[in-house]
Amino acid sequence: MSIQKVLIAGAWRASDALGTFQAKNPVSGELLEEHYPTSNWADCEAALDSARQAFKELQQVDREVLAGFLHDYANRIEAQTDKIVSLANLETGLPLEPRLASIELPRTTNQMRQAAEACRAGHWTHPIIDTAAGIRTQFGPIGPVCVFGPNNFPLAYGSISGGDFIAAIASGNPVIAKAHPLHPGTTRLLAEEAQSAAVAAGLPAGTVQLLYNMPLEDGEKLAQDPRLAAIAFTGSRKGGLKLKAAADAVGKPIFLELGSINPVLVLPGALAEKGPALSEEFTASCLLATGQFCTSPGMLLLQADAHAEAFVDKTVSAFAAAPNGLLFSEAGCQGLAHAVKHLSQAGAQVLTGGTPVTDDERRYTNTVLRVSGAEFLANSLALQSEAFGNATLIVVASDQAETLKVLDALEGNLTGCIYSASDGSDDDAYDALAPALRQRVGRLLNDKMPTGVAVSPAMNHGGPFPATAQAGFSAVGMPGALLRFAMLQCYDNVRPDRLPAGLRDENPRALWRQIDGQWTKDSL
Amino acid sequence: MSIQKVLIAGAWRASDALGTFQAKNPVSGELLEEHYPTSNWADCEAALDSARQAFKELQQVDREVLAGFLHDYANRIEAQTDKIVSLANLETGLPLEPRLASIELPRTTNQMRQAAEACRAGHWTHPIIDTAAGIRTQFGPIGPVCVFGPNNFPLAYGSISGGDFIAAIASGNPVIAKAHPLHPGTTRLLAEEAQSAAVAAGLPAGTVQLLYNMPLEDGEKLAQDPRLAAIAFTGSRKGGLKLKAAADAVGKPIFLELGSINPVLVLPGALAEKGPALSEEFTASCLLATGQFCTSPGMLLLQADAHAEAFVDKTVSAFAAAPNGLLFSEAGCQGLAHAVKHLSQAGAQVLTGGTPVTDDERRYTNTVLRVSGAEFLANSLALQSEAFGNATLIVVASDQAETLKVLDALEGNLTGCIYSASDGSDDDAYDALAPALRQRVGRLLNDKMPTGVAVSPAMNHGGPFPATAQAGFSAVGMPGALLRFAMLQCYDNVRPDRLPAGLRDENPRALWRQIDGQWTKDSL
Repeated sequence: MSIQKVLIAGAWRASDALGTFQAKNPVSGELLEEHYPTSNWADCEAALDSARQAFKELQQVDREVLAGFLHDYANRIEAQTDKIVSLANLETGLPLEPRLASIELPRTTNQMRQAAEACRAGHWTHPIIDTAAGIRTQFGPIGPVCVFGPNNFPLAYGSISGGDFIAAIASGNPVIAKAHPLHPGTTRLLAEEAQSAAVAAGLPAGTVQLLYNMPLEDGEKLAQDPRLAAIAFTGSRKGGLKLKAAADAVGKPIFLELGSINPVLVLPGALAEKGPALSEEFTASCLLATGQFCTSPGMLLLQADAHAEAFVDKTVSAFAAAPNGLLFSEAGCQGLAHAVKHLSQAGAQVLTGGTPVTDDERRYTNTVLRVSGAEFLANSLALQSEAFGNATLIVVASDQAETLKVLDALEGNLTGCIYSASDGSDDDAYDALAPALRQRVGRLLNDKMPTGVAVSPAMNHGGPFPATAQAGFSAVGMPGALLRFAMLQCYDNVRPDRLPAGLRDENPRALWRQIDGQWTKDSL
Repeated sequence: MSIQKVLIAGAWRASDALGTFQAKNPVSGELLEEHYPTSNWADCEAALDSARQAFKELQQVDREVLAGFLHDYANRIEAQTDKIVSLANLETGLPLEPRLASIELPRTTNQMRQAAEACRAGHWTHPIIDTAAGIRTQFGPIGPVCVFGPNNFPLAYGSISGGDFIAAIASGNPVIAKAHPLHPGTTRLLAEEAQSAAVAAGLPAGTVQLLYNMPLEDGEKLAQDPRLAAIAFTGSRKGGLKLKAAADAVGKPIFLELGSINPVLVLPGALAEKGPALSEEFTASCLLATGQFCTSPGMLLLQADAHAEAFVDKTVSAFAAAPNGLLFSEAGCQGLAHAVKHLSQAGAQVLTGGTPVTDDERRYTNTVLRVSGAEFLANSLALQSEAFGNATLIVVASDQAETLKVLDALEGNLTGCIYSASDGSDDDAYDALAPALRQRVGRLLNDKMPTGVAVSPAMNHGGPFPATAQAGFSAVGMPGALLRFAMLQCYDNVRPDRLPAGLRDENPRALWRQIDGQWTKDSL
């Protein structure tokens, strides 16, 4: 048995493996051929040492070089599109077209190039100069970052290719990537391109490193190691909170993206105006990629009336009629079953679905649950458990006052949507309800489902705990996403020739800087 | 016995007190007359309810009104200068002049006015508009904030008058202030002015509230309560970390300012050039306010040579000759004695001081300890324990390589200073050593002691853990300090008339906004 190598200190080398694992084709249920190592602590130790050294060297590397690396890496990924998306398809079951080849891979390289440009421009460093006080401040890189990637976007959120990776690199930090064990091969292919691009750019060895897996306790030990400066994790609440506890105990910055039920509120006027169309829109959003989006709507909130009943009926029919999509893994399918059971035990009624698909361990029946507003309020935490996959909960409140109480009982979420009538009949209700939802979500939408996450400087893919760990930061959108891996670095009375380039009097790169209160690209 | 009232929900009312406490005059050692309540949970409960309601109402309040409140409050404090500084002097022993009346009170009202202007201008909300994607984002207020103030700056860092309070208010959040029990009367006087100003401005009841004390477990319960959105704490590491653990467990943002030893590195050339002058500067910085500054230099790092020995000798003599200053409390004096003992047990040698002043429980002898670089490295964590007060540790490294190791072993600090020769002879050493110190501190200084903290937009009064909880934020300096109490609020496809004022097409207040990548004050 040949075991795939790990990428440590600029070289692919044999892992001193504790064991191995294989990915499984979720379509066929068959194990894929390659064996991947579960690293022992020695691998982590070596990666940490190398990352620390790489960080020291990276501080001398011009950001044009880093930007060039990201551009080159994007080009290399595109040159290997077929190979990468084929393996990603095998490992995840996600469709080659359009999802992997025409949506996720271009999104990945697009945001990589945006990160490259953010790195090149340098505006993210947010220089502030107080000429009278002789004090100058900017954001600078924080140090080595460990990125734990999720199962649901092997490329765009991948540990060595996604938003966390590129943000950490673009802000000048080396990355130790921890692959998701459901798609190790895809991650390996990406890491090969990353490493080739790093060598071509002359980046320090250890700027990009890859481990496939490690025991949970070593993950926590890694999180607490002083050589590591920050952590990014996208995945389950359970795993994320364990890592957070480890990081918190030593004051380590950790950026989590955990679950989110992304509540959708449809006001009575909108329901009367276009209930059937909204039902279709909602159903499509819920079942997109079998509901395995971080922004998949897991909760819909209505006020009781005849239109609400019609909406529920139509949505239930649509869920029942739609094909039951493929989930990433048997564990994912079991997790969904468990979550539906949990919601059911908490008082929700299963209107359709609620059972695994017979003879297919990776499919669950499209599921709609229902609960009244009063029942929701009686058990609101349990009824906000995320059912990751093709299931959603409809909450029918008795009136606007109860709707407000439901909103006030929400935990933090990535998104929240409000649909309202075009004739203004919902406007008073909107004004009364929107502020409560606003404080519970990172992104507030009108008349639009939450599943699309534009890569825009104005995007906020973040939100209050427990959706993420820190409601002031977005995981998507340049250059803001870089700030997660930055520290504020102030220079007080520091001699001019010792200042970092962005804080000197001259501003040859036309950086946006705040000088004595005014934003300018001018030199001092 | 009459017990002072707490400020809850817009009214001074009797606390349902668990007990009472009195402040003590540190000069005379006598208890002051007033009795202050230790609140039971009912007080906290009432304050939380009121803060939640106030927050809802505050969101409808124009920021001009909030700015006006801060200006008016500053005026009212100045009108009561004599009364406030007299009581602060009684409670803290800090000199009336120049410290309280001519330095700290003007600093307090100055930064309050800066916060008012930051609030009025609104640039801190950092609006980002992507016209093509239809997405707009800004920072908005996070919700009710609880501020735990420290002992050492009753006004400028006070729980209801200092940097945390004004930043939380200026960003649109109500504050529950928890007084420091060493100066409850000063806090009461300030809170009276704050409440009068809040009433005059027509702010929601409960925008400013004051509790004097509560059991530790109720503090933790308060920190975890879902009605509270964020916490600011300035004080001891032990107390701060307990509160952090409580907050972390529920994902609550907490901004801590804990201890910092503020290392000062004097390079050999600088020592040769002006050792005696630097010794005087260092001594003055260490003994300022009996060393009870967050930025007091608790560690000095030298390389062994004859000049280093002369520096040590002169510094020891200066410490020995200087009057032993007054500490804030007997507990503070005991804490200092304990810390010096701890450093001593960890291998440091006491060169002068190291004992309490006979017959004075609130004075400790000015203390210099010494340790070699090798000894420091052998026990570096223990030797970085903060000795809050008039004590400092001199570390004498054998050479530059050992100096680098010492810097690499440092925990996070607020500040780090490097003194180097004016003739360039230290420049190579600077280049080799500064990057290591840079990553360990929030503010890097050249040729200047750290004790002055200018109130400037470019200031960073923050630093890596354990100096603070989050190295990306400053507790001093407008408008940056406001961002601690903010959440990122994205509006996706939200109808134009529902956008907050700062994100609409029109920009009547000339807010600095980032529109499609460019900073501008123009309307869209």
